[in-house]
Amino acid sequence: MSRGLFVTFEGGEGSGKSSVIKKLVEELSKDFPILLTREPGGTKISEDIRNIILNKANVDMDYKTEALLYCASRRQHLIEKVIPALEKDVTVISDRYLDSSLVYQGYARGIGIDDVLSINLFSIDECIPDFTFLFVVRPEVGLNRISSSANREVNRLDLEKLEFHKKVFDGYMLLAEKFKDRIIKIDAEKPFEEVYKCVKDILAKRLKDHYE
Amino acid sequence: MSRGLFVTFEGGEGSGKSSVIKKLVEELSKDFPILLTREPGGTKISEDIRNIILNKANVDMDYKTEALLYCASRRQHLIEKVIPALEKDVTVISDRYLDSSLVYQGYARGIGIDDVLSINLFSIDECIPDFTFLFVVRPEVGLNRISSSANREVNRLDLEKLEFHKKVFDGYMLLAEKFKDRIIKIDAEKPFEEVYKCVKDILAKRLKDHYE
Repeated sequence: MSRGLFVTFEGGEGSGKSSVIKKLVEELSKDFPILLTREPGGTKISEDIRNIILNKANVDMDYKTEALLYCASRRQHLIEKVIPALEKDVTVISDRYLDSSLVYQGYARGIGIDDVLSINLFSIDECIPDFTFLFVVRPEVGLNRISSSANREVNRLDLEKLEFHKKVFDGYMLLAEKFKDRIIKIDAEKPFEEVYKCVKDILAKRLKDHYE
Repeated sequence: MSRGLFVTFEGGEGSGKSSVIKKLVEELSKDFPILLTREPGGTKISEDIRNIILNKANVDMDYKTEALLYCASRRQHLIEKVIPALEKDVTVISDRYLDSSLVYQGYARGIGIDDVLSINLFSIDECIPDFTFLFVVRPEVGLNRISSSANREVNRLDLEKLEFHKKVFDGYMLLAEKFKDRIIKIDAEKPFEEVYKCVKDILAKRLKDHYE
């Protein structure tokens, strides 16, 4: 039996990827077996690990500790949920995966993309996505989207965050170059319907090629 | 200011290292600044991580997830406790460290020593121990020690465990060869007082060379 496709979506804050994924899965799962997930994906051990990362009491957490915990959570989610689905020839769509760690921990936090890649390769074995949609939105635009959806002005904290968002943007651009065979860049500043149609056309074709 | 010595103790179950360490630290800390620790070492984040590993409800934990969690716990303990002491020129003695992961997860669990070394090198940066005492006790002997200290016969479960203990023994022997400049083998089948004296003589000399 063949193995399902493993597809991931990546992008900075306010890139609109989650809304697009939701509609895509609703539509395409009429014709193809699709599992939508995102880490920690409801697996108990991965949730336990995430709770440590997100616990506001853990302010002293070192960036490398954090990167290792993300790896551990990813591993367990992969073993319990993603791989069993792929092995049943179900296509798995994950909202964020490997590249988020490379960009957020590796590049934006400054640990180094290659070092974070190396611990992730330990954690995921050979389970690299077949392809990845990268939603490209300039950080100012993404930030404005978040602010306006919350019905509020951009404040000082948002402006401080802008520097971090710029790093995230630059990190994703580096990855798009490094993994150009795998990463498909999507201009996500366009209107929702256009972005949706663009991604849907590519994904539907690949699903058709795989399953038919 | 110079940096304290970083000394670790390793060995299988029933090797007697913890009793020796206790007496050593009582004696030598009269003359030298020594911090005795063992992971997770009372640091909150490391304890939180260990609780996930040791939680009996988490039976589905994958071996690589476990190895990554040990790395994360080690990192945080190192950053919060070990490195600050070393930087004050305090000698840190740790009951188990890096080599335990290489042997237990890398060799005995079968992940591979080099793979587990690679994620550990990410986690500890350059913080390799200056030297390591490896307490060598054949697995049958170690197992007998545990059983007799609990005042009970060796049971079926212990015998099943023997296979695992043999792997741990073999793993440590491989490491002693791989890192022969760092690892000092101690014949720990000898009586307590002899083992204690042997380790104390070596350690006292190195502490004297360092501090005087």
